[in-house]
Amino acid sequence: MLSSIDVQLVYEVEEPTHLCLHLQVADHPDQHLREERLQVEPALPLHDYRDPVKGNRFVRFDAPKGPVHVHYQAEVELHYALPAPDLGESPVNRIPDEVLHFLSPTRYCESDLLGNAAQQLFCKAPAGLARVQAISDWIHDNIAYTPGSSDATTTAQQIFVQRQGVCRDFAHLGVTFCRALNIPARLVAGYVYFDEPPQDFHAVFEAWLDGRWVLFDPTRMAPVERLVRVGTGRDAKDVAFATLFGKASLTRKDIVVRESAGATAAPTGQPLLRAVA
Amino acid sequence: MLSSIDVQLVYEVEEPTHLCLHLQVADHPDQHLREERLQVEPALPLHDYRDPVKGNRFVRFDAPKGPVHVHYQAEVELHYALPAPDLGESPVNRIPDEVLHFLSPTRYCESDLLGNAAQQLFCKAPAGLARVQAISDWIHDNIAYTPGSSDATTTAQQIFVQRQGVCRDFAHLGVTFCRALNIPARLVAGYVYFDEPPQDFHAVFEAWLDGRWVLFDPTRMAPVERLVRVGTGRDAKDVAFATLFGKASLTRKDIVVRESAGATAAPTGQPLLRAVA
Amino acid sequence: MLSSIDVQLVYEVEEPTHLCLHLQVADHPDQHLREERLQVEPALPLHDYRDPVKGNRFVRFDAPKGPVHVHYQAEVELHYALPAPDLGESPVNRIPDEVLHFLSPTRYCESDLLGNAAQQLFCKAPAGLARVQAISDWIHDNIAYTPGSSDATTTAQQIFVQRQGVCRDFAHLGVTFCRALNIPARLVAGYVYFDEPPQDFHAVFEAWLDGRWVLFDPTRMAPVERLVRVGTGRDAKDVAFATLFGKASLTRKDIVVRESAGATAAPTGQPLLRAVA
Amino acid sequence: MLSSIDVQLVYEVEEPTHLCLHLQVADHPDQHLREERLQVEPALPLHDYRDPVKGNRFVRFDAPKGPVHVHYQAEVELHYALPAPDLGESPVNRIPDEVLHFLSPTRYCESDLLGNAAQQLFCKAPAGLARVQAISDWIHDNIAYTPGSSDATTTAQQIFVQRQGVCRDFAHLGVTFCRALNIPARLVAGYVYFDEPPQDFHAVFEAWLDGRWVLFDPTRMAPVERLVRVGTGRDAKDVAFATLFGKASLTRKDIVVRESAGATAAPTGQPLLRAVA
Repeated sequence: MLSSIDVQLVYEVEEPTHLCLHLQVADHPDQHLREERLQVEPALPLHDYRDPVKGNRFVRFDAPKGPVHVHYQAEVELHYALPAPDLGESPVNRIPDEVLHFLSPTRYCESDLLGNAAQQLFCKAPAGLARVQAISDWIHDNIAYTPGSSDATTTAQQIFVQRQGVCRDFAHLGVTFCRALNIPARLVAGYVYFDEPPQDFHAVFEAWLDGRWVLFDPTRMAPVERLVRVGTGRDAKDVAFATLFGKASLTRKDIVVRESAGATAAPTGQPLLRAVA
Repeated sequence: MLSSIDVQLVYEVEEPTHLCLHLQVADHPDQHLREERLQVEPALPLHDYRDPVKGNRFVRFDAPKGPVHVHYQAEVELHYALPAPDLGESPVNRIPDEVLHFLSPTRYCESDLLGNAAQQLFCKAPAGLARVQAISDWIHDNIAYTPGSSDATTTAQQIFVQRQGVCRDFAHLGVTFCRALNIPARLVAGYVYFDEPPQDFHAVFEAWLDGRWVLFDPTRMAPVERLVRVGTGRDAKDVAFATLFGKASLTRKDIVVRESAGATAAPTGQPLLRAVA
Repeated sequence: MLSSIDVQLVYEVEEPTHLCLHLQVADHPDQHLREERLQVEPALPLHDYRDPVKGNRFVRFDAPKGPVHVHYQAEVELHYALPAPDLGESPVNRIPDEVLHFLSPTRYCESDLLGNAAQQLFCKAPAGLARVQAISDWIHDNIAYTPGSSDATTTAQQIFVQRQGVCRDFAHLGVTFCRALNIPARLVAGYVYFDEPPQDFHAVFEAWLDGRWVLFDPTRMAPVERLVRVGTGRDAKDVAFATLFGKASLTRKDIVVRESAGATAAPTGQPLLRAVA
Repeated sequence: MLSSIDVQLVYEVEEPTHLCLHLQVADHPDQHLREERLQVEPALPLHDYRDPVKGNRFVRFDAPKGPVHVHYQAEVELHYALPAPDLGESPVNRIPDEVLHFLSPTRYCESDLLGNAAQQLFCKAPAGLARVQAISDWIHDNIAYTPGSSDATTTAQQIFVQRQGVCRDFAHLGVTFCRALNIPARLVAGYVYFDEPPQDFHAVFEAWLDGRWVLFDPTRMAPVERLVRVGTGRDAKDVAFATLFGKASLTRKDIVVRESAGATAAPTGQPLLRAVA
């Protein structure tokens, strides 16, 4: 599977603002970046960063008053391996040290508060992939997808109560139930082709099952193996596509994702064209 | 059914305190107070009040530094009529004006937040008594009765999330689900005989169904028709058995409830012996 | 002071809906209703209700699918007596039985949670009117008036944290601080002339000081003696200008308030023209 | 400064439990571990881990039913350098990539909700160390140190409202205000000698100022330069001294911290005696 990403953002900067953009395709074994181009206008000194552990990439820059146009294009091969349907759970004493902290509650995922509810709802499901699938299914069946029903402060607990939200809320609730059941889980943000426009940033979750991370999308908007991964984090705060320090507003956001069954020929030469100054 | 109540409370007053006690049997058509006695030591000027609408009764007094002993005894005949099992719901346009406000959310009953959850869980239950019974059953089956798991600030929303609480929490959640479904509901506090000691104040809820109030006890600790009603209110804040303004602590609380199938002979003469100074 | 009110509302009813409108001028000793007219189109059977204690008035009716136009006009004389600047506080043991429950927390006013904060902020203010004025001033100085920063679920606790809100939030926080300091308080909704359009429903709060209710407006948008009172309640849930049971949306809301230093001549004849069917 | 730590814990394990203990002295440039001993009885296979970035250390093991005794002893030299009093703030565009995420809200530190409050309270303080000191002072002056007033689910927002808490709550509020003002901040857990027993685990916070981390203790219980660091994290979830997966209860916790102005002679030989199997 080959995926092409085209993102155009325009910010209207009212006061000098420091921007940290997190919209580039991640360094991740499940995907191969064939080509990439990032343009920022006006031309500003860009600083880029890759998290050595998670592979998340950031671009930071100072923007003066006025409009800032961001154009990002990428072409990515996807190689996500679907898990065996009988994948088991890792008992806690076999969860690796580096993974253990994905059991902890975070700003949006109060797994410490939802322990009893998670037990009630999912204790009878078979352990392993089937249980996380049951979590994902429960969210799909019980939480209404309602744009505008949540905001940047909404947490999994609130979603569990109000029974509506958007993709990041669905993913947060999945993360929360998993952690409450001692299954390490985390948020994954990225791009995916939706049948119904408009395209947008997407969020799903990932659970640690028997030694590997497995993706789940409780929204069922698109097959998880088609997700182009941008960021992996404890929750949405780690993978916000933009963080602004100053005063600016997003006045345009156009995202186009195209898929082609496409050529899986090995990349040749230097595929990476980065516009970083 | 004849019920005898014996309540002994001791407060250790550290600074002059105004007490408002709400432990006397209510004026209510479902019960007949045959005899009653309230003693406060030291002897203090007591002021008593009955709410003309709800029949709740309060005794207020100023307590000086030192111990205050409260002894309340009452003998009550209970005449609660069990509802017909097919009792229906009142459509909103037939809910009386005076009852309408029991649809509103209150401090402990955020029915505005739990609307979707209530719809999901109970929309398929048949309207009327069967639906409220389904609510009461769901609470019994999904909320663990766990002393110490909640406190005086815990709300129905929190109980719905944490899945544990005590009788007042069970009742608050029942009230909340009903209101969310446009069924007026309120809290009822009182005394009831439990098979397993210790006896304590109890709380249940009451729903407005087809022109009458019907009692429900999601704890299933005792049959609702055996409840001796002390107070009726929007939520627990309206029927706290004691409200203290000052600095005092409760150092003893002994409640004894006895039942006898007993004489339903009409009361004669003046049964009320009130110790109010 | 003479005030003229003109309110036009249009609801687009999608499914048969029961409406309970609470926009008529209250029965209250501080104001005299000289003339009033309520029109609902299409012509529907209206049921009206006045709360015998608070004087709040409601009009209820069933609306079929389609538009519903509501037009309310009133002319009111205002006689609110400004309090003496040295008005004291009522010690708790002298708060009347009927007023005591205005010390309790409610859905939007968690006075039980804000007790320490209230003590810290206002314990040094002189007791009585000066203390409540200090509360009102603190709210004015520390909470930004920001339309859109709160919604129908926002509580005083949240306003205290987020430091922004609208008039009802300001009033809720005032109510909450008062109750936390054992000063009975409640919400008052009504109409008032603003210097800057658009006119809208307004909310202020009222504190019980030395035997009377005294109005405070932490927004300082208009002098409180110019408020035309519509409703008095524990919090905003008691005085919502409209409660809808069904599916309808408000598509027009125009409120015009006019003031004239005006004739205080005694009303003659039958001033009340009520359109209630 | 030389510090000796002696910790004795006893767990009563009811069902086989996986324990993750985080009570060993951290690998950190500000301290030098001269000697250390960890004993677990019964003798169980221990697995230990050091976080390569933060220097936090964990010991994990499976405990069978029955009592588990943990005895930890360490001797540590402390070299924390007090900051210059005029240390400045790092503008956001000069905060290192690796430090940036310490601006994000976490489970216990809702810096996104407390932004306006932080601005109001501290915008007039001089930038830099003086501002964080003002934060620490404000917490000391406005939050009462009240054991039992908070629990493992209490967040900074709640502490800001209820105005009482314990050391970790003080630290969380400090972290939260800093992040809300774009100053990276994190929690530090450790041991410190208190004048008044009993000794206990302690928590303080650390702010990123002009290129270095600076410690602050809003409880003022002990000088921060005497803290023996055990863990550094986003909030208390990252540095819990024990995390239990199973069913066990802590039945004994004795912590003794001793200080001696002590020999700062260079360590010789192999000081580390680790009991890890």
